[in-house]
Amino acid sequence: MNIDMIRAAQQRLSGHVRQTPLLNAPFLDDIAGRRVWVKAECLQHTGSFKFRGAWSALSALEPAVRSKGVIAYSSGNHAQGVALAARMHGVPAVIIMPADSPALKIANTRAYGAEVVLYDRATESREDIGARLSTDRGLTLIKPYDEPEVIAGQGTCGLEIASQAAEQGITKADVIVCCGGGGLTSGIAMALEADAPGLRVRTAEPEGFDDVARSLRSGVIERNARTSGNICDAIITPQPGDLTFPIMQRLAGPGLVVSETEALQAMAHAFSRLKVVAEPGGAVALAAALFRQDQIEGADVIVTISGGNVDAAMFSRALATLA
Amino acid sequence: MNIDMIRAAQQRLSGHVRQTPLLNAPFLDDIAGRRVWVKAECLQHTGSFKFRGAWSALSALEPAVRSKGVIAYSSGNHAQGVALAARMHGVPAVIIMPADSPALKIANTRAYGAEVVLYDRATESREDIGARLSTDRGLTLIKPYDEPEVIAGQGTCGLEIASQAAEQGITKADVIVCCGGGGLTSGIAMALEADAPGLRVRTAEPEGFDDVARSLRSGVIERNARTSGNICDAIITPQPGDLTFPIMQRLAGPGLVVSETEALQAMAHAFSRLKVVAEPGGAVALAAALFRQDQIEGADVIVTISGGNVDAAMFSRALATLA
Repeated sequence: MNIDMIRAAQQRLSGHVRQTPLLNAPFLDDIAGRRVWVKAECLQHTGSFKFRGAWSALSALEPAVRSKGVIAYSSGNHAQGVALAARMHGVPAVIIMPADSPALKIANTRAYGAEVVLYDRATESREDIGARLSTDRGLTLIKPYDEPEVIAGQGTCGLEIASQAAEQGITKADVIVCCGGGGLTSGIAMALEADAPGLRVRTAEPEGFDDVARSLRSGVIERNARTSGNICDAIITPQPGDLTFPIMQRLAGPGLVVSETEALQAMAHAFSRLKVVAEPGGAVALAAALFRQDQIEGADVIVTISGGNVDAAMFSRALATLA
Repeated sequence: MNIDMIRAAQQRLSGHVRQTPLLNAPFLDDIAGRRVWVKAECLQHTGSFKFRGAWSALSALEPAVRSKGVIAYSSGNHAQGVALAARMHGVPAVIIMPADSPALKIANTRAYGAEVVLYDRATESREDIGARLSTDRGLTLIKPYDEPEVIAGQGTCGLEIASQAAEQGITKADVIVCCGGGGLTSGIAMALEADAPGLRVRTAEPEGFDDVARSLRSGVIERNARTSGNICDAIITPQPGDLTFPIMQRLAGPGLVVSETEALQAMAHAFSRLKVVAEPGGAVALAAALFRQDQIEGADVIVTISGGNVDAAMFSRALATLA
């Protein structure tokens, strides 16, 4: 895992990925007490940064291997990223999803052209089903974060941040990243180390699911007590990845933690001030910039809005915090 | 009014205006029956394209004149554009607003650094107040659309569309623009005539306020019966401008008209598929692309989302159309 892999991924992604804008608004600066810059990855294809890693992994496969197709376990952003990247490569994608997933998520994944295989969470193992399908059909598993080419793809977001920050004259700032397994965080960290060494990565997580913040503090991988039961579902993972954690440990500052309510408030500010749609897990970094200013250093702060795949009911809950 | 003014405005705007992205999503293509490309001007500074025209007009003033300040009548997007452009130029801005404007709009305009002068709609004339302030303080009036440098500024959006369409290989398409007084439409029309002659401008308006569509049909300026009472308030004007109408008449195809409900539905699709916030008046062009496909030609259609300044209550109404 090194910067050359990220630069190679950027070459492969060129013309296929969107360079997302770095947004700002004076109202957010007033709340945060410093200038706030928002990397709006919710505007990426499929509504999250996951498309970068999926495209990177698919495009790195040998054509003969890729043509047999890919497989992923996910009901969320990674599934959609893999499905669309596969469709754009003209190869099959199988997504294994729990049978009780929301109908809209299943429909969306199918609409991106993927074959959805449903399983019963109570009686079946998705790993067994995946292993059988992979063997039978020669499908390649695309893991969501602990996979070098996926991390390299997410790192392209960091190369863009480095260049967009330089355009704005920002040479020193914390870069807060919404963090689940650490694929986006570690990729961005490596990109900044190479191209913008004055920018330091920080992680943002929801309360009660702060495995990365605790792991960074203790120096060893810590697990979450629970793996569900939070509105920030997109970034709820059991623990940091084996590949991603050492990178974060070497390069990231102390982790930041916000409440669910703060994530909803950040979504509302993104709506009213930036005109973009953030999902709860995609808003925790902005929440940290707005509501943890005493834990942040410098005159500027950069945050990712990592995804915007949220339904109308949850979004209305966020808007209600404006009242 | 010519293309050289638009190119000169683009020079003056460079580094100050955002180049907004041209977004797309397979789900929108499926509804529209052709590829849909969305110029997301809601992501512009102050949440609408109006910042372009305001910056253009302010930057075109002689420094000695500009330093005395500018004045505008508006409670909406033009006010915010003028206020922020003036603040960034370091000159005073006075915005004349009805005393019964929503408190949030007054607060926002003040937060952009403008002096807000309130007047009583029943007993006072904003023109009289404006004339007195202009004379006393030497303020320059920035009109919202019927002003060459404002049209030139809005035309820079068209230069971007021409170049972004070329990047996507689009050489022939209708470009549907949310149309009030015609500043954005006429500016884009002239830019496309010069840089992308295969792209043709079309206007989109709400039912009952289709003065431009009727004027284009009859060949003379037609007025609306009413000038209020529609959720698309940002694009409700009495009639097309004296400067903008001849340009539209020469370059625009037939006007398109959509209902309020269709505008709300388009807002909901922009939320769920593009992750951007559109206001009702900013969503009529997308609504036309989605729901007037038999009146549109070609394999691609380009639309503007011209603004995103909408409150939570109206946005929730739009989201409710998804159910």
